Amino acid sequence: MATMTLLDDADLSPAAAEVFADIRATRGTDYVNNFWRALANDPALLRATWDRLKDVMAPGALDPLTKEMIYIAVSAANACTYCAHSHTASARARGMTEAQYAELLSVIGMAMQTNGLVSAMQVPVDPAFDASSA
Amino acid sequence: MATMTLLDDADLSPAAAEVFADIRATRGTDYVNNFWRALANDPALLRATWDRLKDVMAPGALDPLTKEMIYIAVSAANACTYCAHSHTASARARGMTEAQYAELLSVIGMAMQTNGLVSAMQVPVDPAFDASSA
Amino acid sequence: MATMTLLDDADLSPAAAEVFADIRATRGTDYVNNFWRALANDPALLRATWDRLKDVMAPGALDPLTKEMIYIAVSAANACTYCAHSHTASARARGMTEAQYAELLSVIGMAMQTNGLVSAMQVPVDPAFDASSA
Amino acid sequence: MATMTLLDDADLSPAAAEVFADIRATRGTDYVNNFWRALANDPALLRATWDRLKDVMAPGALDPLTKEMIYIAVSAANACTYCAHSHTASARARGMTEAQYAELLSVIGMAMQTNGLVSAMQVPVDPAFDASSA
Amino acid sequence: MATMTLLDDADLSPAAAEVFADIRATRGTDYVNNFWRALANDPALLRATWDRLKDVMAPGALDPLTKEMIYIAVSAANACTYCAHSHTASARARGMTEAQYAELLSVIGMAMQTNGLVSAMQVPVDPAFDASSA
Amino acid sequence: MATMTLLDDADLSPAAAEVFADIRATRGTDYVNNFWRALANDPALLRATWDRLKDVMAPGALDPLTKEMIYIAVSAANACTYCAHSHTASARARGMTEAQYAELLSVIGMAMQTNGLVSAMQVPVDPAFDASSA
Repeated sequence: MATMTLLDDADLSPAAAEVFADIRATRGTDYVNNFWRALANDPALLRATWDRLKDVMAPGALDPLTKEMIYIAVSAANACTYCAHSHTASARARGMTEAQYAELLSVIGMAMQTNGLVSAMQVPVDPAFDASSA
Repeated sequence: MATMTLLDDADLSPAAAEVFADIRATRGTDYVNNFWRALANDPALLRATWDRLKDVMAPGALDPLTKEMIYIAVSAANACTYCAHSHTASARARGMTEAQYAELLSVIGMAMQTNGLVSAMQVPVDPAFDASSA
Repeated sequence: MATMTLLDDADLSPAAAEVFADIRATRGTDYVNNFWRALANDPALLRATWDRLKDVMAPGALDPLTKEMIYIAVSAANACTYCAHSHTASARARGMTEAQYAELLSVIGMAMQTNGLVSAMQVPVDPAFDASSA
Repeated sequence: MATMTLLDDADLSPAAAEVFADIRATRGTDYVNNFWRALANDPALLRATWDRLKDVMAPGALDPLTKEMIYIAVSAANACTYCAHSHTASARARGMTEAQYAELLSVIGMAMQTNGLVSAMQVPVDPAFDASSA
Repeated sequence: MATMTLLDDADLSPAAAEVFADIRATRGTDYVNNFWRALANDPALLRATWDRLKDVMAPGALDPLTKEMIYIAVSAANACTYCAHSHTASARARGMTEAQYAELLSVIGMAMQTNGLVSAMQVPVDPAFDASSA
Repeated sequence: MATMTLLDDADLSPAAAEVFADIRATRGTDYVNNFWRALANDPALLRATWDRLKDVMAPGALDPLTKEMIYIAVSAANACTYCAHSHTASARARGMTEAQYAELLSVIGMAMQTNGLVSAMQVPVDPAFDASSA
């Protein structure tokens, strides 16, 4: 159950079908997950989201697995059910070990905890942390 | 301005002073930041938080810089002002380059965006993502 | 599955039944959704919530459809499953087109993204934005 | 700096002045804090918010101090700077001891931590927790 | 469906089994809920989480029921499905009445509302709330 | 104080300067606010963010003022200080009246409140809200 129909391949507009073809080619799999099938109702949003995701998650100064773990961290903080599932699956597909996942979970738990403490106590930022003046 | 007095070294209880000594020894610096000076009002919470943080952020299956970047990601999602400042400073102290930081920011932005889209559309989780049955 | 029994009409207290009657009269439908059936366990909270909602969502300086879209935006940011579903249904019932929904989603995604970037970078507010001095 | 002018007593509309009089009488102090001075720009929202707050925070099945601590907990999770400050001040005014505050902070930290772990791992709800069927 | 296998008793490592034994002894029930069965994949995280939770939720300056209600408040603000269910069940097991629960819900709703208003209007903190200078 | 230097025009790379020129031309003002001056440290992220924002906030099925109000709603839910200030200023620049702003605030407050109630009670979604099957 979603707020939008999940489109089957047969129901895609030509513009959406083109994005699906790129998803399949980039990922090397025929499987296209539900997120894209929901976005496919708006080919412009589908295109913009996919193009940006492909750029952002590509190897660069950070490797793709590190990026997936950062993605999981944001998704956990935002309580995003779908995103937690999909990016944990992606991270495993990129080689995340169970030991790495356990440490990722520990860091998420620790950060959540100190975020809550700090937001409750409203600790003022140390001037030593200032990075905004060259 | 905080909801608690930030304790100077002279005002620490012996139990809190012991934690501060461990923070200084572990980090190799005399500087103890405001978060710990606020927590020092409750030595038990100070001790539990520091002991756990030291464990969680130590090198393991993930390196300390990766852990700091994950910490920043959670803190950004939670809009934790102090945490964003302190952990960005820590990440830089551990060698985060500006290129890495730029990619970290890009992943945070992307994750926030798709978290919002997914939470709005309530996309159902693909059975293919299931990792809960051995 | 909820933390409270969803009350059938037959199980309502007289005070709750009165609110349900007003919901039905105001909305012009016999259908009363689960949110109210959960709140009905506490007739005072049911009454206060419904009375305020009716006021807030009534036509005024903003039209009801705009209000529903704002409601969806908050609910997406808060990852509120029920609210995303119920207010998207309401917005469609008030005439939201698929083109409007697609743009609403795009704005939600954009706002989430820049919220995350800003909270990570802790950008200081421009004095030019100050509206607090007359 | 706020998005609205904080109104001085001299600038209040008669409707807002009436609410301020009730705030003063109820709280037994002449001091009216900034939240109400911002809301005073819209007397209807000021009235609705104050009337509801007065009801909700009054002694009942829960005592006012417990209610203030619950308020702090929500405000910490939402990273609401103003609310953390104002409700911690209120809780202290209602007799919150430093020992109680320390335990409140510990529970907030613990809840944030397990919220993050659960949202990352997407643990399915135990059927044993079901309270929705009478 | 979770991102981790929920471990049966038969699949526990000795270290995890020891924690489960302590959970059962402390709670006086044989039932161990899914959260711990997910964490059991990482005995170190399981141990750290359980030891801290046992400490934090024990009777002290605040009674266990008050602590459970604070836990529910944080979990609601974070939209944590599992946590809302499990801690509402725990609170009821510790004697929370329906009247107390109704007031808890009312305070959560009120706090969420004013958190949103304050975060929208960015009300500056009253100097009168300052507690950080002794 | 930010985690990044806010770049003056004189310190921009040619790629960043090009984006600033487009911001000025599009908005018809010489003023470029701090958000862009922070992003300017990474011209690729600056470019991607600006290009997408320009598209998303342009007139379409929703008018620009409605889009700004939706943006404010998300930013309030996320407690994004900078975003609340900047988008409230933008909304006023696009003609938002104080009466509209008051109603926007009321809807944000109402949505936050019912989001919290629903997330606490975990109300199951009514099958009547299903929009996912054509």
